[in-house]
Amino acid sequence: MVKAEKIDHICIAVKDLAKARRAYEDRLGLELAFEYVAESESIKVARYYVGEVALELMEPTRPDSEVGRFLKRRGEGLFLISYRVADVEAALAEYRVKGEKTIDQKPRRLMGIRYAFIHPPKDLSGVLTEILDGDFDPQKL
Amino acid sequence: MVKAEKIDHICIAVKDLAKARRAYEDRLGLELAFEYVAESESIKVARYYVGEVALELMEPTRPDSEVGRFLKRRGEGLFLISYRVADVEAALAEYRVKGEKTIDQKPRRLMGIRYAFIHPPKDLSGVLTEILDGDFDPQKL
Repeated sequence: MVKAEKIDHICIAVKDLAKARRAYEDRLGLELAFEYVAESESIKVARYYVGEVALELMEPTRPDSEVGRFLKRRGEGLFLISYRVADVEAALAEYRVKGEKTIDQKPRRLMGIRYAFIHPPKDLSGVLTEILDGDFDPQKL
Repeated sequence: MVKAEKIDHICIAVKDLAKARRAYEDRLGLELAFEYVAESESIKVARYYVGEVALELMEPTRPDSEVGRFLKRRGEGLFLISYRVADVEAALAEYRVKGEKTIDQKPRRLMGIRYAFIHPPKDLSGVLTEILDGDFDPQKL
C-alpha cells in the first residue's frame, strides 16, 4: 500500500510574491530559506521551513500555468499538499495495478526530487496531491 | 515577534466524511487516529497524524457553519493551516500593539488547546490561518 510518511511541503498560490512574503514573514515570523524559479512549472517560489514541513508561496510566471489557472479559477489560497513516500515510481505502479488513473504516469524531476501528481483533485476532496521522494537541493536548479 | 514553531494541523473541508476517509486512507495509506465532533464549530472530523502534522478532514454538521460556508463558496478543498506558537494570548496582544485587527481577540478553547483565527484570509493569500498552543487531548471533548 502507498504510505505517506510525512507532509513534505504545502503550497499556497499567490498573485504577488513580494506582498505575500511580507505578510507571512511579518505575521507568522517565518524566515525565508530561499527563493527559486522553476521554469518547468512556470512558478516563482519563496520557500520556508516550519518544523519538518516546507511552506511554499508560489506566484505563476505565466497565466496559463497550473498555478495561474488555479488563481483564475479559485483565487489565492492553498494549492497543493505534497507527501513523502518511499518510492514514487513504485507508488505509481501500485495505483496502476489497482486500476486507478493518476495525473502523472511517471515521476517528474526537479532539484534532486522525483515527484508525481496522483489522483485528480476531485478524487481527494478538492486537493491537488503530490507524492515525492529524494532530497530537495536548490543547488540542482 | 509572533513565531510559528511548526505546522500543527491542516484542515480539508469535505462534503462526505466517510467518502473522503476512504479516499485518504486507501490512496495515501493514512491511518485514522480518531474521529470527533466539535459542536462549537459545527464540524465532524477525522484526524490523522502524518509525521509531526495532523491532517483533519472536516464535514460541517450545519450549512451555516464556517466550514459549511466555505464549501458553498469554494467547494471541497484545503480550508485552514494551524501554526503552533509559544503563547496564543501573547501573540494576539502583539498583533494588537502593531495595530493589526485579528478575527479573534481572545483564544477559543477546545480539547486542551487554545487557538485563535488571526488575520482574515485575504491578508494571508486566501488562507484561513490559526495559531494555537496547549496539548490536544481528545479525552477533553
